[in-house]
Amino acid sequence: MDYRQVFAANLRRIRHEKGISQEELAYEAEVNRTYMSKVEKGDTWVGLEIMVKLSDALGVEPADLLQRPPRRGRKR
Amino acid sequence: MDYRQVFAANLRRIRHEKGISQEELAYEAEVNRTYMSKVEKGDTWVGLEIMVKLSDALGVEPADLLQRPPRRGRKR
Repeated sequence: MDYRQVFAANLRRIRHEKGISQEELAYEAEVNRTYMSKVEKGDTWVGLEIMVKLSDALGVEPADLLQRPPRRGRKR
Repeated sequence: MDYRQVFAANLRRIRHEKGISQEELAYEAEVNRTYMSKVEKGDTWVGLEIMVKLSDALGVEPADLLQRPPRRGRKR
């Protein structure tokens, strides 16, 4: 999982937690809808400016979108 | 202070703490030297891919480079 996917997973999770559609977030953050869906698929290396627009629209810090998910413990 | 300056300040601080020159960091992170100096001046919106290369070269997490500095308390 590279950071495109880390960012995408955090973006989707937080967006769902806030009950915001992808379309609403794209509108709020003034991000092109097609680009928005590429970002959420983890298909593109997003720039810091858009990271800040998205985190502002979600009411979180940009750093929150870059936190790696905790490693799942291996079953013995 | 927008996030270009937040990122630049964190990059300079951590690089100095680690005793690495801008040139060495640019080499380690495989980033163009001229671009590196623009990033450290806070003059450009860096992309996530380069953020990851720089944080890897410094041995920190990308999110560490996006932490806002603590607000300085106003003197009474």
